[in-house]
Order: sequence, then structure tokens, then C-alpha cells
Amino acid sequence: MTALQNDRFLRALRRQPVDRTPVWIMRQAGRYLPEYRATRARAGDFLKLCKTPELACEVTLQPLARFPLDAAILFSDILTIPDAMGLGLSIDEGVGPRLASPVRSQADVDRLGVPDPHDDLGYVCDAVRLIKRELGGRVPLIGFAGSPWTLATYMIEGGGGDHDFKRAKSWVYGETKALHQLLEVVTTSVISYLKAQREAGVDALMVFDTWGGALAAEAYRECSLQYMARIVSELGDAVPTILFTKGGGSWLESIADTGCSAVGLDWTVPPMEARRRIGHRVALQGNLDPAVLRAPIPVIEQEVAATLRAFGPAPGHIFNLGHGITPDINPEHVAALVAAVHRGV
Amino acid sequence: MTALQNDRFLRALRRQPVDRTPVWIMRQAGRYLPEYRATRARAGDFLKLCKTPELACEVTLQPLARFPLDAAILFSDILTIPDAMGLGLSIDEGVGPRLASPVRSQADVDRLGVPDPHDDLGYVCDAVRLIKRELGGRVPLIGFAGSPWTLATYMIEGGGGDHDFKRAKSWVYGETKALHQLLEVVTTSVISYLKAQREAGVDALMVFDTWGGALAAEAYRECSLQYMARIVSELGDAVPTILFTKGGGSWLESIADTGCSAVGLDWTVPPMEARRRIGHRVALQGNLDPAVLRAPIPVIEQEVAATLRAFGPAPGHIFNLGHGITPDINPEHVAALVAAVHRGV
Repeated sequence: MTALQNDRFLRALRRQPVDRTPVWIMRQAGRYLPEYRATRARAGDFLKLCKTPELACEVTLQPLARFPLDAAILFSDILTIPDAMGLGLSIDEGVGPRLASPVRSQADVDRLGVPDPHDDLGYVCDAVRLIKRELGGRVPLIGFAGSPWTLATYMIEGGGGDHDFKRAKSWVYGETKALHQLLEVVTTSVISYLKAQREAGVDALMVFDTWGGALAAEAYRECSLQYMARIVSELGDAVPTILFTKGGGSWLESIADTGCSAVGLDWTVPPMEARRRIGHRVALQGNLDPAVLRAPIPVIEQEVAATLRAFGPAPGHIFNLGHGITPDINPEHVAALVAAVHRGV
Repeated sequence: MTALQNDRFLRALRRQPVDRTPVWIMRQAGRYLPEYRATRARAGDFLKLCKTPELACEVTLQPLARFPLDAAILFSDILTIPDAMGLGLSIDEGVGPRLASPVRSQADVDRLGVPDPHDDLGYVCDAVRLIKRELGGRVPLIGFAGSPWTLATYMIEGGGGDHDFKRAKSWVYGETKALHQLLEVVTTSVISYLKAQREAGVDALMVFDTWGGALAAEAYRECSLQYMARIVSELGDAVPTILFTKGGGSWLESIADTGCSAVGLDWTVPPMEARRRIGHRVALQGNLDPAVLRAPIPVIEQEVAATLRAFGPAPGHIFNLGHGITPDINPEHVAALVAAVHRGV
């Protein structure tokens, strides 16, 4: 394995001092980049991009060619697991994902098996190996998966749903046996998937709990957090783990208690309060409102500086947005953001 | 004025002991009730319901005829103020509100005036007087308005928007002069509107900050909270005030600091933590996930009991959902909820 030339991101995850705050951007390989749109058009289909290691590698590296980012993140989709389970994923960018065979009954749950990460999801491991080779140790590579609750939500709803999650929440309050059986099989799948990504070479692992914030506090603990805690515990300390529950600001202490290396923060959480509440036992990743990237560059610089000040000088901060970058952003604004983070306050 | 026969709600707002926890339900006069749908069909148009005092009174009272609720809430819409400002409101239930003339420039802001609550919004005051008469002191009546930030968001977006609030957030980070001028005129309008509702007879006032939770912490303070604080301060102590920022769990202390009587909680906030963080200086209102109402009745009863236990025995809790009730709910489930609250733990 090639030694890393830039380990700022990994040092920050371990709460070690760094020469400057590391930065990467959720969805940094995405539609705001014209070169991404070109590759995407060539591929013809979003899933083709994910499933063709050469193309996944190409788009993973695109933002690094433009910006001095401190980490790469595997280009993939959180729904590769339900797809590998046979639910028939299709993704229409701009509309969202659709599962042709959603999970609607106990019998549907009974039919689900754990996908073999080296077979059904072998394309992801191949992409990781290729990206690692192409990166040549320039920066670390982040692997990821959706959280069990988030995947289960998509699987029950059959897609992005109405943000009320009527079907999935009916399971929370009425079909707990089927729901927990579903969460079990998804959790086992996520663990074996993330272990396979790790064996293929990723340097850190992130779990995206996009819909955890839709749950009531107690339901979050039972249906999302306990399964993420099991993932963290099964993965152990071999590579750092980042947990991110969007809208999870009320539960930061419990997220930190899982033993993860870092907690992702959305923009509603004041960084100083997060630190006060969870101390220095984990690193923090976040948390600029992606909307700031639409502002004039001087405002972006000002907001970056304010964010850096709010996180303070103690080690253990990875700069990021509080959610994924949106397709309408001007790449020059991203360049300004990255430069401002590296300049510091 | 008729003396109140049931003042549980007002006593709880003042954190005084009550014989049983008072309960009302956000959007309790709404589409889940067949009698509401009948009146709505007779009116032909949602705004006609709001603007005809007799119809507004009729639907306000409908849930009270079914359930032993401890408060009535004026049937109206949060967008009556932008409508009275001349922005041309239309509401297609199921799709959402539309403003024909959104606010898109400094010149658009310059044109806005404060509506006369007794003239442009006189129909609301008339409805309040009629409802108070028809209630005959059975329970208190809640008046309300949208928060300045929430109204400004609708005014800039021209409707419910995409939940990313691209236009409104562009103003937060790029058009601060125009935005704050807009927030000023809206705040002045909300204050005079709520004072008029109070003069017409409402017993408590609630401010709905539906979109405050979309803001970053600092932006929330500047663009939403400071204006709500001014409203609370201008209204004084004549009637109790409730502030509710959906998704505002990170900022409870600051909301309580405004001097309001009660803070509304959505379901992501654990009640015990809310109490620990803000103490007993305000009452708390909330916070059952509306999704629970889709569960079988024994589960509803169980979740109500768990919520009551979580709020604890200290005075100052008003039971409510963490957001409005949805149209698909069976009224019998609402009856079970209200009965379970009154039975207690």
C-alpha cells in the first residue's frame, strides 16, 4: 500500500493536531461539475456510473482535479444494498430513486437475504481498488453506506417517499416485529458491505442516516441508533468511522456514545454547543449550510471563517457542508470555499 | 365576557397545577374530519372558509363537538397577512399555497405596507368574536400568526417552495438589507394582527415558525428568533404566548429566553432533555409524532402514556402533537388519544 501524502483528514478524525483544517464536501463528485455531467451523459444512466468501476473511479477523482480537497469519497449510491437484495433499483436524477419491488409485508421481509459483498456488490469493491490505485496515496478514500433505518425507509416506501414516511412509520408503531427483522438483515448487510470496502482499501467509513431525523427520540434510539451502534462496534478500530444523522441535533450525545470516531453535524447545530454537549471524545464533521455556496464569494469566505471560529482551535474538526452540495452551485464558489478553509481564520 | 368553564390550558400555560393534562391538536379543525370536508365542499374554496366568519366559526367548533379538547384554535391560514398585503394568495389543499405576486426585489419590498387588521384582516377579528360567542366560555380560544421568517419565506419563494428555500436563503446570505426590511414590515404586521385578535377576544396567542428549522443556528437567531422575541415583547403579558419552531430543537434555550409563556416541541426533542435544558421558566407544548395516530389504538394509548411520563408530573405541560394532524387520520384514533391524555399515566 502506498503511504498517504496528505493525512490531515485521518489525523483530524483521530483528534490529532493538523497544519490546517481538512475539508471535503458531501456529494463533491456530482451534478454541479460539468465534467461529471459529461461522464454521466456518456454513461447514459446513473446506476451505470455506480456499477462501472472505471466510470465510478473517473467521477470520484473529478473534484480532486479541481480543488485541493483533503479526502476523496467513493462515488456510489446508498441504495446499492437494496438493489443487490433484488428490489430493482432505478434512479432518475432530479426525481429520486425508485424500488420496483418495495418491502410491504412480513413475507417480503422473510424473502430478503444478505448480499455477498464480493459478488452482488463486487463492482463497488472493484471501484474502491481502482480508485485507491489511481489516487496513488494523494488523499485518503472514504467508503460509505446508508444507515439501516434510512435503507429500510427507502425499502418500505419504495422510494424517497413524501418525507412524512407514512408507510415506514406505520411499521415503527404497528409492525415492530417485521421492522426489526428488516433492520437486522439490513444491518448485517451494511456490516459485511463496509468490511468489504475496508478490505478493498478505503481509509475511513461513513454511515449516512439521512432520514433518522424524521423519527421521535425514542424511535430513533430503537430503530436507527442501536443498529448504527452495532455497525460501529462490529467494524472496530481498523479504520475511523463517521456517523451522520441529518436532523439529529437533539441526540448528539447518544451518537457520540456509539464509539464512532466522528459525528457529522448539519447546519442547525451550533458547533460550540455540540462541543459543550459531547466534549472531545469524538471528532466533529460539518456544518456549513449548503445554501451559503449560492452567496457571493466574499460572503462564502466570511461564513467559512465564522464556521472555523465556531469549531474553535482544538483538534478534531473536519470541515464539510451540513448536507450534500446541490446541482446549481458554481464550481468557482466551491474553489473559494476550499481555499478559505485552508487559509483558516 | 363569559367566565371560562375549562381553564386547564391557560393554567398549564402559567405553569399552575391542573387536575389533568390539557390537550389540543395542531390542525384539529381539518381534513381528517368528514364534517370539515363537507363544510369545505360547501364553501367551494379554502380561502372562502377563512374569510367567511360563519364558516370559520363552524369548522373551528367541529372538533370540540367530537372530542373533549381543552382549547379551540381559530380556523385560519398563516398566509392571511401576505394576502392582505396584496400578494394574491390562492390555496389548493393537497398542493399548497401560491402567491401570485411574490417578493423578488428591493422594489417589491419597498411597496409592502402593514395591513390594517381591522380592515384588510377584519374578517379574522369578526371570526374571533363569533367563535368566542359560540364557545360561550367552554374552553379558551387560541389565536395565531406565522412567524416573520416563515411568512417571508413564503413571500420570497411564492409558495411552499422546494424545502431547500433557495430564493429565501439567497436573501439570507446575499440580500440582507432587503431581507431585514421585509422582516421588519412583516413583524410590525404580525404584532398588529395578533393585538387585534387579542382585542377581539382570543385567550392565548401562538406563533408558528414552520420553516425556522431550515436555517443555520446564527441565521436562525438573526432572521427568525430576534423578530419573534420582538413580537413577544410587544404583546406583553395580557395573554400567554406560545412559540413553536419546527426543527428548532437545538435552540430551545434561546426560544425560552424570549419571555414567551410556552415553547412548542416537535417529536425529535426528548421532553426530559428539554426540561433539563430550559428548566421550568416556561411551559412546554407537544410533542407526539403525528405518525402515531396511524397506529392501532393500544399503541396510541401506550405512546400517549410514554409521552406524559416523559414530560413528568411538574405543572406546565400542554399535550399536543409535534406537528399538524394529517388528513388520513381516523377520527376515532383522535378520540382515543384525547381520552388517553385525560386518563393520564
